[in-house]
Amino acid sequence: MADKSEKMKARLPRGFVDRTSDDIRAVEKMMATIRGVYELYGFEPVDQPMVEYTDALGKFLPDQDRPNEGVFSFQDDDDQWLSLRYDLTAPMARYVAENFEKLPKPYRSYRSGWVFRNEKPGPGRFRQFMQFDADTVGTPGVAADAEMTMMMADVMEALGIKRGDYVIRVNNRKVLDGLLEAIGLGGDENAGRRLTVLRAIDKLDKVGVQGVRDLLGKGRLDDSGDFTKGAGLEEAAIDKVVAFTEAGASNAAETTGNLKAIVAGNERGTEGAEELAQIAALVAAAAYDDGRIKIDPSVVRGLEYYTGPVYEVELLAEIPNEDGQIVRFGSVGGGGRYDGLVSRFRGEPVPATGFSIGVSRLMTALKNLGKLDTSDVVAPVVVLVMDKDTESLGRYQKMVSSLRQEGVRAELYLGGAGMKAQLKYADRRGSPVAIIQGGDERAQGVVQIKDLIEGARMSAEITDNAEWRAARPAQVTVGEADLVAEVKKILAAQAEDRARG
Amino acid sequence: MADKSEKMKARLPRGFVDRTSDDIRAVEKMMATIRGVYELYGFEPVDQPMVEYTDALGKFLPDQDRPNEGVFSFQDDDDQWLSLRYDLTAPMARYVAENFEKLPKPYRSYRSGWVFRNEKPGPGRFRQFMQFDADTVGTPGVAADAEMTMMMADVMEALGIKRGDYVIRVNNRKVLDGLLEAIGLGGDENAGRRLTVLRAIDKLDKVGVQGVRDLLGKGRLDDSGDFTKGAGLEEAAIDKVVAFTEAGASNAAETTGNLKAIVAGNERGTEGAEELAQIAALVAAAAYDDGRIKIDPSVVRGLEYYTGPVYEVELLAEIPNEDGQIVRFGSVGGGGRYDGLVSRFRGEPVPATGFSIGVSRLMTALKNLGKLDTSDVVAPVVVLVMDKDTESLGRYQKMVSSLRQEGVRAELYLGGAGMKAQLKYADRRGSPVAIIQGGDERAQGVVQIKDLIEGARMSAEITDNAEWRAARPAQVTVGEADLVAEVKKILAAQAEDRARG
Repeated sequence: MADKSEKMKARLPRGFVDRTSDDIRAVEKMMATIRGVYELYGFEPVDQPMVEYTDALGKFLPDQDRPNEGVFSFQDDDDQWLSLRYDLTAPMARYVAENFEKLPKPYRSYRSGWVFRNEKPGPGRFRQFMQFDADTVGTPGVAADAEMTMMMADVMEALGIKRGDYVIRVNNRKVLDGLLEAIGLGGDENAGRRLTVLRAIDKLDKVGVQGVRDLLGKGRLDDSGDFTKGAGLEEAAIDKVVAFTEAGASNAAETTGNLKAIVAGNERGTEGAEELAQIAALVAAAAYDDGRIKIDPSVVRGLEYYTGPVYEVELLAEIPNEDGQIVRFGSVGGGGRYDGLVSRFRGEPVPATGFSIGVSRLMTALKNLGKLDTSDVVAPVVVLVMDKDTESLGRYQKMVSSLRQEGVRAELYLGGAGMKAQLKYADRRGSPVAIIQGGDERAQGVVQIKDLIEGARMSAEITDNAEWRAARPAQVTVGEADLVAEVKKILAAQAEDRARG
Repeated sequence: MADKSEKMKARLPRGFVDRTSDDIRAVEKMMATIRGVYELYGFEPVDQPMVEYTDALGKFLPDQDRPNEGVFSFQDDDDQWLSLRYDLTAPMARYVAENFEKLPKPYRSYRSGWVFRNEKPGPGRFRQFMQFDADTVGTPGVAADAEMTMMMADVMEALGIKRGDYVIRVNNRKVLDGLLEAIGLGGDENAGRRLTVLRAIDKLDKVGVQGVRDLLGKGRLDDSGDFTKGAGLEEAAIDKVVAFTEAGASNAAETTGNLKAIVAGNERGTEGAEELAQIAALVAAAAYDDGRIKIDPSVVRGLEYYTGPVYEVELLAEIPNEDGQIVRFGSVGGGGRYDGLVSRFRGEPVPATGFSIGVSRLMTALKNLGKLDTSDVVAPVVVLVMDKDTESLGRYQKMVSSLRQEGVRAELYLGGAGMKAQLKYADRRGSPVAIIQGGDERAQGVVQIKDLIEGARMSAEITDNAEWRAARPAQVTVGEADLVAEVKKILAAQAEDRARG
């Protein structure tokens, strides 16, 4: 292959990351729990490939011949544009539309997988990340939306997040749409300005009320000197939008009452407020109104395709962020009603609602909260290779096999270094036990077993003789036939020590 | 959104497929088993993203400014070429090279995930498919290769494939390289012809000995009339190559003896034959020479990057293929030593060996063999919605909640159709039980529970009165408080029926 002169640099493209063993194990554990909740609610796993026709994802802007820049795209042999999916909802909509006649309706399904965004990466923002979604297609009533919010709450509790440490916030795009109609921003020609208003509200957490007012008006100059153009609303209109975001009260009846007053006389807005009242009643009937689920007009969600209720799960627990500051962790997932996505393909109304959990973000939160302990995964026992003739290797091989047969993780050291380097390797792996058999031991049919955890503790901690004698011996010699039993005894003692903390 | 006139066609690009619930559950089950074996051998999970720099994958041909056509590629903002990974080995090599100092050596890791090939799809050939790999980096001795072959055998047995129904075949590229040197095909200038020879041998199964002779010589005309250009070898050279593929004998000692004779006098070839003898001895010492692992000179593997031992797992069981013909299933995975892949980035030798399991192919085989039963997944109980006022919905909601709290999959029908359509929905879902509470029942505080499995059986099978009376009643009415207990009783009875077959 390549010689030294043409050595290539090993590096990852920006915004892509490798995953460590700990992260993979933590995600597996977390996802098994989430899957359990989705299954209990009667959802079935179905998934789509990572590549779709770009137009099926809705990623062609009307007057362009190249896909939207936010997606990774490439042309197929037949010149059609393909893209990597940017979420799991658009491919699911394509799937349901394509298999509509075959599927039971309502169609309840869940899926997890990687999605891709061709955007500027930043701290905690990657160009490949994992989502875990659940969706119900074919159900117009808000009972389906209410169910989604309750399932999100159940997911949080199944993951060990205490009641009061999270909240599901619910709003309805129809109320906002009604408000925008009322202030003269209805119609297709104002779609761009409506999106600007939406994104301004979505920044409330970050920029505060005055920041939102600026973004709704002429624009906002941020601390770094960057200017963001505003939606250009008049003062009176700005007051109305801000009043809308502040309409949240301590109870749902009061909140929906406030919203009804704000959109009074507008049909769409009133419909939205009534839907929220209905969701609140269903949530209360199921006793999820104890702080788990709240009507909150400040929630809008960033995606354009929502058409009705939107909802978001926020972790209230205060956790260190990337910069070490203690902050509220914030949103770990959300979703809403998207009645247009499947209809696009069908030419008939196909109402749908669903949500997405940001897997990496939620995993980070759970790790910080100590809810994803993977310390029960014990590193392998290492059998050292003291002699390399085939007969000795065969004998070492038998030791690892007999350990594995009893369910003990074990490996033969295959590196070619001496005993000291091999013990260093075992240490680096975090191995609990090392097995040694040199020529003398082989002649006697015995093996040395080193308890590496106890050995490390003894050299680090033990200060007097009484402790020394009370401790487990860090090394024993046993007959080959007793190897497995002795290793299991040591592992059990180590597990007990861990359990004691 | 779009109106009818601009309705879009819901379709998938060629070579990409959606996965059904059954397939997803079967793959999960299978992968958990494989993971268990890898873990037991002391391998750790680590994975890489799907996107890499194209050059890191080795997918730039020397004199081109666009990536190899076999990969999906696109340019980043900074004009650098990115590609979707075509296997898990090349990204792993990049990862190990990038994190070399931090990793224990030898480095034992495993990973699963989707890979992409920009090739013409065909029956059973997809452009996105899943692999599940294990690799050891940093170990030059063939003990590591021998371990890989034994681990592959253990994976097959853990999956329930009986001894004798699979075989791991082992060969060594060095022997073939030595042979090719001996017939004048050494050196960089003959790299292309060597690859043609390799691919000719790889087709032995499909085209037979005469077909391989044609491909080694002037070329081959297949049944469809397509002509494949040959390697252009002389008759004497063809005889030698064919003799090599036929050097396999009933025992390893004889096979390696035959190989030594064929490459006598060539250093590289002799080294390869000796390595095979050593692998055979290690395999014998661990008692895997009982037909599980065989030295077989006809195995070459299609990838260019192998530098030493290569190995392949073949299912011998006869299974219907896509066309319904009963055939040997063939290879479900394989691998080999690739001492050049990590070195490419490091400018120093980094020996490595590993293998890849074709997940979808193996899953298909296991399903055909009846080894991936997912019938223990019971569809959800459906609570019918007879009345839609919030009070009634709340009551139905409580029923599903109480079932879920006891671990019973349950859902509220959220579709908006009448009772008959709701029961049809439950049938389509394969639901075991339906719960019905109309106004009368609500007034009495009772629910109707329909046993849908027994109901279907009764209407299909029962012919006389005695049988009818002996059968479980297909419908009972119980007090609301007894709902969960009664449903669990029915589910238990159904499970017992299933267990009886």
